[in-house]
Amino acid sequence: MTDRSKIARYFPILAWGRTYTRPTLEADLLAAVIVTIMLIPQSLAYALLAGLPPEVGLYASILPLVAYAIFGTSRVLAVGPVAVVSLMTAAAVGTLNLDSTTDYIAAAIALAFISGVMLTGMGLLRLGFLANFLSHPVIAGFITASGILIATSQLKHIFGVSAHGHTLPELLISLLAHLPEINLYTLLLGSTAMGFLFWTRKGLKPLLARLGVPPRLADVLTKAGPVAAVAATTLAAYAFDLGDKGVAIVGEVPTGLPPLTLPSFAPGLWSDLFLAAMLISIIGFVESVSVAQTLAAKRRQRIDPDQELIGLGTSNIASALSGGYPVTGGFARSVVNFDAGAQTPAAGAFTAIGIALAAMFLTPLLFFLPKATLAATIIVAVLSLVDLSILRHAWRYSRVDFAAVATTIALTLGLGVEVGVSAGVVLSIGLHLYKTSRPHVAEVGLVPGTQHFRNILRHTVKTTPHLVSLRIDESLYFANARYLEDYVYDRVVCDQPITDVVLMASAVNEIDLSALESLEAINTRLKEMNIRLHFSEVKGPVMDRLKRSHFLEELSGDIFLSQYEAWDRLTAPTEPPSKITA
Amino acid sequence: MTDRSKIARYFPILAWGRTYTRPTLEADLLAAVIVTIMLIPQSLAYALLAGLPPEVGLYASILPLVAYAIFGTSRVLAVGPVAVVSLMTAAAVGTLNLDSTTDYIAAAIALAFISGVMLTGMGLLRLGFLANFLSHPVIAGFITASGILIATSQLKHIFGVSAHGHTLPELLISLLAHLPEINLYTLLLGSTAMGFLFWTRKGLKPLLARLGVPPRLADVLTKAGPVAAVAATTLAAYAFDLGDKGVAIVGEVPTGLPPLTLPSFAPGLWSDLFLAAMLISIIGFVESVSVAQTLAAKRRQRIDPDQELIGLGTSNIASALSGGYPVTGGFARSVVNFDAGAQTPAAGAFTAIGIALAAMFLTPLLFFLPKATLAATIIVAVLSLVDLSILRHAWRYSRVDFAAVATTIALTLGLGVEVGVSAGVVLSIGLHLYKTSRPHVAEVGLVPGTQHFRNILRHTVKTTPHLVSLRIDESLYFANARYLEDYVYDRVVCDQPITDVVLMASAVNEIDLSALESLEAINTRLKEMNIRLHFSEVKGPVMDRLKRSHFLEELSGDIFLSQYEAWDRLTAPTEPPSKITA
Repeated sequence: MTDRSKIARYFPILAWGRTYTRPTLEADLLAAVIVTIMLIPQSLAYALLAGLPPEVGLYASILPLVAYAIFGTSRVLAVGPVAVVSLMTAAAVGTLNLDSTTDYIAAAIALAFISGVMLTGMGLLRLGFLANFLSHPVIAGFITASGILIATSQLKHIFGVSAHGHTLPELLISLLAHLPEINLYTLLLGSTAMGFLFWTRKGLKPLLARLGVPPRLADVLTKAGPVAAVAATTLAAYAFDLGDKGVAIVGEVPTGLPPLTLPSFAPGLWSDLFLAAMLISIIGFVESVSVAQTLAAKRRQRIDPDQELIGLGTSNIASALSGGYPVTGGFARSVVNFDAGAQTPAAGAFTAIGIALAAMFLTPLLFFLPKATLAATIIVAVLSLVDLSILRHAWRYSRVDFAAVATTIALTLGLGVEVGVSAGVVLSIGLHLYKTSRPHVAEVGLVPGTQHFRNILRHTVKTTPHLVSLRIDESLYFANARYLEDYVYDRVVCDQPITDVVLMASAVNEIDLSALESLEAINTRLKEMNIRLHFSEVKGPVMDRLKRSHFLEELSGDIFLSQYEAWDRLTAPTEPPSKITA
Repeated sequence: MTDRSKIARYFPILAWGRTYTRPTLEADLLAAVIVTIMLIPQSLAYALLAGLPPEVGLYASILPLVAYAIFGTSRVLAVGPVAVVSLMTAAAVGTLNLDSTTDYIAAAIALAFISGVMLTGMGLLRLGFLANFLSHPVIAGFITASGILIATSQLKHIFGVSAHGHTLPELLISLLAHLPEINLYTLLLGSTAMGFLFWTRKGLKPLLARLGVPPRLADVLTKAGPVAAVAATTLAAYAFDLGDKGVAIVGEVPTGLPPLTLPSFAPGLWSDLFLAAMLISIIGFVESVSVAQTLAAKRRQRIDPDQELIGLGTSNIASALSGGYPVTGGFARSVVNFDAGAQTPAAGAFTAIGIALAAMFLTPLLFFLPKATLAATIIVAVLSLVDLSILRHAWRYSRVDFAAVATTIALTLGLGVEVGVSAGVVLSIGLHLYKTSRPHVAEVGLVPGTQHFRNILRHTVKTTPHLVSLRIDESLYFANARYLEDYVYDRVVCDQPITDVVLMASAVNEIDLSALESLEAINTRLKEMNIRLHFSEVKGPVMDRLKRSHFLEELSGDIFLSQYEAWDRLTAPTEPPSKITA
């Protein structure tokens, strides 16, 4: 790789920047306007969900977007605060039991910084494949459970009561305990906002279409629903002095661009936040990369997962340096960006300018914004994440996948996000290892009229008494080496006429050293019983490796290119079954 | 299963006890005498290695043997204190920084009890397969490194200095620092004992043969070498008053049968010892079960790994209840038992009687026994465990296996037994997952004159431009689902004439839900490109599962029984390549 292409790999902006045209600019600008309208209430609301002051949400929506525009490979990913990562931030920082808001913000900033360093480091080390170890069912279960947790955690703002907890039982008990303190003004306002937002999602677009509004404009108007709700409820709170009637309002929000901050490097804080930062990094990356890949595929573009790690890592570092908290690529927001016609990451940079303008000029208007409105925005947004059909789907397809998704959901709801996702990962890997430790072994025979061999239990096939052909349906490695030994002995030990065993290795993709030792043991044991051991259809890479050991010299039988060749030779009358040549 | 056979499964003694005959009794008694002679010095020495008073070694060689005789399934396994588990006990209890010997013994007893409960529990839950996750290279590396650590740790007794540490650098530095305090009497005695013991291993048997001693008797005399060394050096220490000249001697050893003890149930102690007990359980089980399997195979007997867990678990509980420390099946001792002709576990019970007699009558004679002699016994015994050839062997066969064994050895020596073996296990599993996350995919063509398909890069095969056949050499699951997506897109995206892709699934042993979603994505994407997706040689269990999803209805192509059938139909002139029916 030349120096120039190396640089280009780490700065994707050089590729798309060089061919930037006026029509691209116009498309990006339009998309940026729509995303900005959507992002202002979202960033305020997710900061609330993370337990942070609203301006932190705005700060996390400025520099991170610029960093992603420089380092990211997706053309349409919209980076910023998202629901699940905000919930994980609240869980991580909440357990530190910090007294002051300043310390709480400092911890959230440190979390973004640690996570950013981790992501960037993983990207430089090209560890993007690690994300593959989160199985789809685990992710789906985790997102669904997080959606339920988030919606439940916001109910307190709708009821106007205080409630705490990081698990579903804690949240529900706390909510019930405080229910007598309910504030009816808040409830009225919150439920009206929620109803309105649901209606803009479902009912507004068809209505606008019937009214003859052009589809493009209808789209923008629909996306502006949360902004309208924010404006209307803020006005109502101002007009009817709801703050004095017990409705929680946002209050003073600092005006201006984010302050440049240096994150805390206190070793105690870093070690306390290490695991949480790791989980946030992985979950954020997996979420983001799957959105980016889905959208890229629609336009026949490609993204580079390792460079995406760098893109998200630098975004989080940028967030930490400008008073923000952990960010990642948001699903709904990126889809909106894509639909609105964004062509390059410049759309993200223009969105950043939009949010910066909001931070400079709109914050005084947020004083009377009721927290219930933000909670309503969150609830409506996250309920679209909740999809319990994955449970039914997984149950029908495979009990193992079902176990993974059900455990992830149950533990996320019952014990919190960190335990839930960790258990899901460990369980996925554990179940996979368990399955491969007891491989499927099929005794095969010849399908008449072909050269093809299939399971004697499933197909009508030809066999012969002195020859046993076993197809091993798994790579042979330490976890199943002993199982194969047992299987072969059990099969041959009581069957007198057997003189030849063929292991059909078409599905054996690897034989590690442990398995090689087991094969040597099988060969020796069968030799003592006057049975020859053969192999058929051994793959190239496996054969290469076997040639490097002494196994082939010691093998009592032969290696056949195909199972048919093995059958042909071992059943031929020229080679009587009783003759042992080894 | 009937009640009776259930009981018989958990009490193997009922099976062999029913057919016990006089010749069996005689064979067992002879084996017991030989093993007892071997076990007396070993149990004293391994107690010293574990940092425990010598009588604890004797206690651990009485009741545990009786428990194993009742619950174990191996006919010849000799249970008791062994070198590696003694080292692990020293490491585990040593880190607790206990002041008094009483506390140290109590912790070792608790360790045996916890480990016994774990093993028994795993046996009742039939979790014996878990032992398979320790790969052979990791075990070999761990045993070799432990042997080096043990031998080094005993050098202080040969030099007559005090030295401490649980890792090789610690031990060597501590030894060098204390070397000026060397006691020449101890060194003379220890090195003489070591020389004598090496000679009895290598030189004594040929000599006896030349002198016309019957082989059986020569065998017993060779095994009695350590007893002779103990007797001779004890006499020397008594006669020349070596104790007063700075030679460390064993001193007062309590006489009598082991006291019945109740292990400590202090929660703090249990949580401190939990991980160590787990590692000791697993290492002890793996060691023991592989010895038992090797020996059982020689006599065409079988052992039941799950019942072995119960056998070892009850042995450890018995050890804890009688003042002993963790035990397992010893390799050398079991081979001696086997060679001496032991027929049933009754030989173990008779050995227990022999050790009990020793505890009652021989302990006063041990007062002058020099510790250097015991150290010499240990060094000579463990050096046979050290086998660095595994490194060369693994390197030649596979870099991945080499990485596992080299890391295990390096970390065991450098950071201690617990880190070493844990890292080995994690690394084995991690490397396996990494390999399967990037499966080998081969583009295949027809071997002329056959119905067999092989890699186009390795064999001379027939292909056709519009048809790509990809053989996937791995089960499809969450860790490699995305890799396959990328591979297929990369292959077809720039190759215009392609109209049909066949995924040859002969090596695909499983398709989990994550992989199913990837296949759905591939199918959709290829359909958009006017390319049909087919499968061939899908296995029975995989097909069963696919039928439970909607995938087969949506699939743009067909499922063929064999790759040849796919080739035959898709290259037939009746089905022109341009006709897309989906």
